Amino acid sequence: MKVVCTQSTLSSNLSLVSRAVPSRPTHPILANVLLEADEEKGRLDLTGFDLSLGICTSFSATVIESGTLALPAKLLNDIVSRLPESEITISDKPDPEALEDERATLISASGRFKINQEKNVEEYPEFPPVEASEYLVLPVSALTDGLRGVLFAASTDETKQVLTGVHLTRTEAGLEFAATDSHRLAVVQTPVSEVEERSVETESDPPPSPSREGDRGGGSGGREDFEVTIPARALRELKQMLGSPKESPSIQLKVDEGQVVFDLDTRHLRSQKLEGQYPDYRRLIPQEFSRQISLDRKELLKGLELVAVLADQKNNTVKFSLDSDKQELNLSVETQDVGSAKQSMSAQIVGESIEIAFNIKYLMDGLRALPANEIKMQLNEGDRPVIFTPLGGIKMTYLVMPVQMRD
Amino acid sequence: MKVVCTQSTLSSNLSLVSRAVPSRPTHPILANVLLEADEEKGRLDLTGFDLSLGICTSFSATVIESGTLALPAKLLNDIVSRLPESEITISDKPDPEALEDERATLISASGRFKINQEKNVEEYPEFPPVEASEYLVLPVSALTDGLRGVLFAASTDETKQVLTGVHLTRTEAGLEFAATDSHRLAVVQTPVSEVEERSVETESDPPPSPSREGDRGGGSGGREDFEVTIPARALRELKQMLGSPKESPSIQLKVDEGQVVFDLDTRHLRSQKLEGQYPDYRRLIPQEFSRQISLDRKELLKGLELVAVLADQKNNTVKFSLDSDKQELNLSVETQDVGSAKQSMSAQIVGESIEIAFNIKYLMDGLRALPANEIKMQLNEGDRPVIFTPLGGIKMTYLVMPVQMRD
Repeated sequence: MKVVCTQSTLSSNLSLVSRAVPSRPTHPILANVLLEADEEKGRLDLTGFDLSLGICTSFSATVIESGTLALPAKLLNDIVSRLPESEITISDKPDPEALEDERATLISASGRFKINQEKNVEEYPEFPPVEASEYLVLPVSALTDGLRGVLFAASTDETKQVLTGVHLTRTEAGLEFAATDSHRLAVVQTPVSEVEERSVETESDPPPSPSREGDRGGGSGGREDFEVTIPARALRELKQMLGSPKESPSIQLKVDEGQVVFDLDTRHLRSQKLEGQYPDYRRLIPQEFSRQISLDRKELLKGLELVAVLADQKNNTVKFSLDSDKQELNLSVETQDVGSAKQSMSAQIVGESIEIAFNIKYLMDGLRALPANEIKMQLNEGDRPVIFTPLGGIKMTYLVMPVQMRD
Repeated sequence: MKVVCTQSTLSSNLSLVSRAVPSRPTHPILANVLLEADEEKGRLDLTGFDLSLGICTSFSATVIESGTLALPAKLLNDIVSRLPESEITISDKPDPEALEDERATLISASGRFKINQEKNVEEYPEFPPVEASEYLVLPVSALTDGLRGVLFAASTDETKQVLTGVHLTRTEAGLEFAATDSHRLAVVQTPVSEVEERSVETESDPPPSPSREGDRGGGSGGREDFEVTIPARALRELKQMLGSPKESPSIQLKVDEGQVVFDLDTRHLRSQKLEGQYPDYRRLIPQEFSRQISLDRKELLKGLELVAVLADQKNNTVKFSLDSDKQELNLSVETQDVGSAKQSMSAQIVGESIEIAFNIKYLMDGLRALPANEIKMQLNEGDRPVIFTPLGGIKMTYLVMPVQMRD
């Protein structure tokens, strides 16, 4: 194999696929990036894969000789990212100066690297094929909004299995994103008008282009509902991928029995699905409330950040005192060891005065994710779930359970 | 005690003195910042002290009642830095609402904090008085240049005692800064014209102003030589202090038997001196060389950063191959496990070709500190010390010992 490409293209694609390379691989070969050069197509494909999450990109390059090469991801990334902008030649051929040298070479304008290559490149695992007859076309912006609104609420505790994922539901109403770690729940709804459904012509064909012309299948009239839980880790990488420069405003999603695949032009992210029944979270969201407060999100967040200085791991609780007469919200934290903090702000309060306490971290996480500055807090009694919603903009619900107050 | 000041002034002064507050204090009271309010002067003084390093600042404030208060440095800093710009009132008085409450109060526009205060405020150690009859006036810029050029070369190994400091020598030639960890040595010379010497009238008087009018003492004709070794830790904080907005272009330095004090307007940093004989480093610097290379500092640094990707803790060595015929410098790193790297650059070489190896980290540290882009490397044989000097600008010498080459 021998290929020539520019430093900038190689570097950005390498850093993308490297995100799927495990830092502690279960098999040594997974610490590599797979480079596949195709002379006929004039393209170089890069792949990173940890058996659950895989990222693959493809870009045009001058391929002098087709072939496949597996190189240590971290080392290659470290080298390429530090090289100045210039042409880079990568080859698996022995160095002409030393014929018995079996190392791969990387040559730039100012110098030359020899890198010990993985010899058993054929052991690099292949992505299982996706067996889906249809795929969804989603606007990148809707997916970004959904992920930004819920990802933070997924559990980071690996033993919680299905809760370490984000639950996606496709219904007639649109696409819904949900994540919960059992203490709080975040839900974002994307309107149906933004989601399109198309059929895959044949498995072996390349996926049709996301433009209108490619719509030869079920079209937006398709109504096949589905539910899937995708590991938050994979979606964090997807969010990163969506944030980098992109050519297309839409992304394709394919779902089969065991996996999901997101196709964004020449970038592909595949992930195993999380098995198991996702909790019926919709039942947790109260439909009626005895109290409602309109708040300035940034002011509330500022106040919480201030009183949080006194909160600690022993006592991570903030007390909300809603004063209906004064139309005032008081935040307070009280500790034995250090002291106490109190912040006041005006708020529009409908309903009776009440005191209610929360885990301050959960509250701040949710407030940071809410996509509007004017927000609504709705609650019943001090031991019932509370919801926060934005006034206008994206449809999002953040539910948090209160904690018991100490007295 | 009761004092009113603005958030921005309090915050910047607090963060400065907090740098002298130990994270693991040997005595609990040292975890506090000392606040001393003087009604007559209308000033608030803040002090942080770890028994070796002390920082004290003073600023004008509305003092309603004189007094002294010791408050936990980290907590106070965390609170004040997060408060919006507004007036802040600090008081050691019991809260009027709860007379038996002995906590200090901090009141801002939006809220109120109660902080458990240190009761035995009189236990807070006093700075020992400085017994110096003279002091030096240094331009801030000269001190900054000196510290930037040598601080990195001081040892971080606490057992190396005197080598954990920077050695300052005052001679007729000016003020010289030196630091070495026994593997490399950095020396910066400040010209004599920039250093002034004045006498302190009496111990109890405030130090005279650094302006020419205040020069009633020995003047720049004073010729008392001295040597002092100051802990690098204290000088890092001094460098930080010099970098923050300052009113005066010059700083005063007092030295007595046990300590040094730097006075920068209303900010004062004192440090214990390091005891022990500093190595006679001047003897280490060769005066004659058989080879000389002119180099572009940034290009050399870039090249080293690239080949350093392959260097690791086992083999941290870079080989320099000076090719006198080609007028070329080749950098190379060779490892068993990973691969090899080679970078080439043009260089003006006087003298015979040679191969010589260095610890790559030491080399990069020095190149980052050299204050010019055109630099000169001078050497003899491959086992003798090598020096790097800037062409023009500040007078600096960076000496590094080569390492033995592996073959």
